Amino acid sequence: MAKPRSSMREVAARAGVALASVSRVLSGHPDVSPAMRDRVMTAVRELNYEPDLLAGSLRRRHSLSVGFVVGDISNPLLAEIVLGAETELREGGYSMLLTNSENDPELDARHIHLLQQRRVDGLLLSLASEDDPGTLAAVRDFDGAAVVLDRELADGVAVSSVLSDHRSGMKDAVGHLLDLGHRSIGLILGQPLRYSRERRRGLEEAFASRGLEPTYRILEGRLSPQHGRMAMSELLASEPPTAVIAGGNQLVLGVLDELHRREIRVGAEISLISCDTISVTELHEPPIAVVERDTRELGRRAAALLLRQLGGQTEPQRIVLPTAFVPRPSCGPPN
Amino acid sequence: MAKPRSSMREVAARAGVALASVSRVLSGHPDVSPAMRDRVMTAVRELNYEPDLLAGSLRRRHSLSVGFVVGDISNPLLAEIVLGAETELREGGYSMLLTNSENDPELDARHIHLLQQRRVDGLLLSLASEDDPGTLAAVRDFDGAAVVLDRELADGVAVSSVLSDHRSGMKDAVGHLLDLGHRSIGLILGQPLRYSRERRRGLEEAFASRGLEPTYRILEGRLSPQHGRMAMSELLASEPPTAVIAGGNQLVLGVLDELHRREIRVGAEISLISCDTISVTELHEPPIAVVERDTRELGRRAAALLLRQLGGQTEPQRIVLPTAFVPRPSCGPPN
Repeated sequence: MAKPRSSMREVAARAGVALASVSRVLSGHPDVSPAMRDRVMTAVRELNYEPDLLAGSLRRRHSLSVGFVVGDISNPLLAEIVLGAETELREGGYSMLLTNSENDPELDARHIHLLQQRRVDGLLLSLASEDDPGTLAAVRDFDGAAVVLDRELADGVAVSSVLSDHRSGMKDAVGHLLDLGHRSIGLILGQPLRYSRERRRGLEEAFASRGLEPTYRILEGRLSPQHGRMAMSELLASEPPTAVIAGGNQLVLGVLDELHRREIRVGAEISLISCDTISVTELHEPPIAVVERDTRELGRRAAALLLRQLGGQTEPQRIVLPTAFVPRPSCGPPN
Repeated sequence: MAKPRSSMREVAARAGVALASVSRVLSGHPDVSPAMRDRVMTAVRELNYEPDLLAGSLRRRHSLSVGFVVGDISNPLLAEIVLGAETELREGGYSMLLTNSENDPELDARHIHLLQQRRVDGLLLSLASEDDPGTLAAVRDFDGAAVVLDRELADGVAVSSVLSDHRSGMKDAVGHLLDLGHRSIGLILGQPLRYSRERRRGLEEAFASRGLEPTYRILEGRLSPQHGRMAMSELLASEPPTAVIAGGNQLVLGVLDELHRREIRVGAEISLISCDTISVTELHEPPIAVVERDTRELGRRAAALLLRQLGGQTEPQRIVLPTAFVPRPSCGPPN
């Protein structure tokens, strides 16, 4: 690097503490008070101090960086989650390195190893699988803090998580359709990860809580436009439902494609609800009802939880964030 | 890591070469034949050999990883570019670490330093700025291979690039509007980066090549839905154009939002063209004409060029990939 760097000595002077204290804080030594850590990290930020991380991290654990293991970077929600997490981490003095596994659990496992080799202090995990043995082993072996986003890991891997309450939003969405008079409802789901399980339960509970027979159909597949299109086609093949719910933002793209192709009018001939706001749900005519959530907040809270763990908090925590149903003209009485 | 690793000795045995040859290949030694490099890297992949990168990279330059510095991860094109680049890099035995700067050149510069500290072998650069001094200094100081995507760096920074020929696609798009009889055309542009300059030139050339007066208006701003909305509003405020071109996929979201709000019918009351395919351009009724390009190929070619440089090619190269205009019912004769 070209610019002269602040030294650890300058950090100590700025913070008004001993050099050994700076070293202890930066090395992640357990025997450091929160106040001391605050003082040193404030000086680090003010001086824009960058330790020679690579040489240093062979001795220390503190590289001031965090890895974000992403299963599907093509999901537009991810950008908001990343923005929320990055803003929070940057305020805490951390940089973020992202990896993308294209929904391949084997790559997730390799990326966790790679990030560990690069000595990141912590991991944010938006994993492709909740039960892949290689992924679970990599998470278990990771020597640092970790927070899982919207996944429930199998095998009792003790790790903190920030989850969305998909179930209650879906229960309200289905309740809205039932109030309009719909009984034949199709639910299209992606992979059997937490969000799919919870959305399924929301549907089941909405019917059960009103004492209704389960007159719905559920089609599982991948969280992709292709599956959305094929599942929509399958639902229409015999006894078409009067309402359809796309259980993911990638699915609604395929559903709309199929409905447009068949010239079936959304809202008038079939009711449609999607999950999570994307530009298509807003700009479609008519606008599409959604079960929405604050994805930026999801990223922010996950990063904040990770920072607390990096600051010494050891108990795994579980935070659940709300979802809300937003009714729109894509839903009407059954045809 | 928990699993036992292959050793460098096993790699040598598998490749049928001397241990010193494996070491030379992995250290990026210049005096290695392509055939030798191929043999060793094939064995590395077959054995899933992972050198102890961090300790090793203090002596060697070869960490088998590449950094991708991204200016705006919220741009949906990025996912395709990343997929193309990752696929190519993975076949070459490399992993990718991404950073996101939210269009802040200062963060781009910091991320380049961070990736250098983590000893990546090369960089793919989709930068927020083409002339920010900090960014340019960071690129110049980077000790490894680098390829720029769709940017032209100022100050004669000698670096390879893969560019899109935005100009010819835009010239065809404007030609289509002129053929339909439009003369009053509004062009909404994002930041003054290469893609904006080239799109502007395509418009100018289409008018000039037909000997027409420049009866168009150009509104520059940021590549965001907000700018798209406000620029559309400004164009409609006095002497509205009969056709509008959104010079970026983020811009068309705001343009559509404003047109829907005012209940102006696309295709019938105003003609609309956008740049780059996104789900909205496909699913809109009517579908929206676009200047399109193969963004996955852009990522793939950039990664392939980087791999050639990592393999020893030193001359900076400049690759230009085509764009094409796709007419659609969003364009009609002027109202």
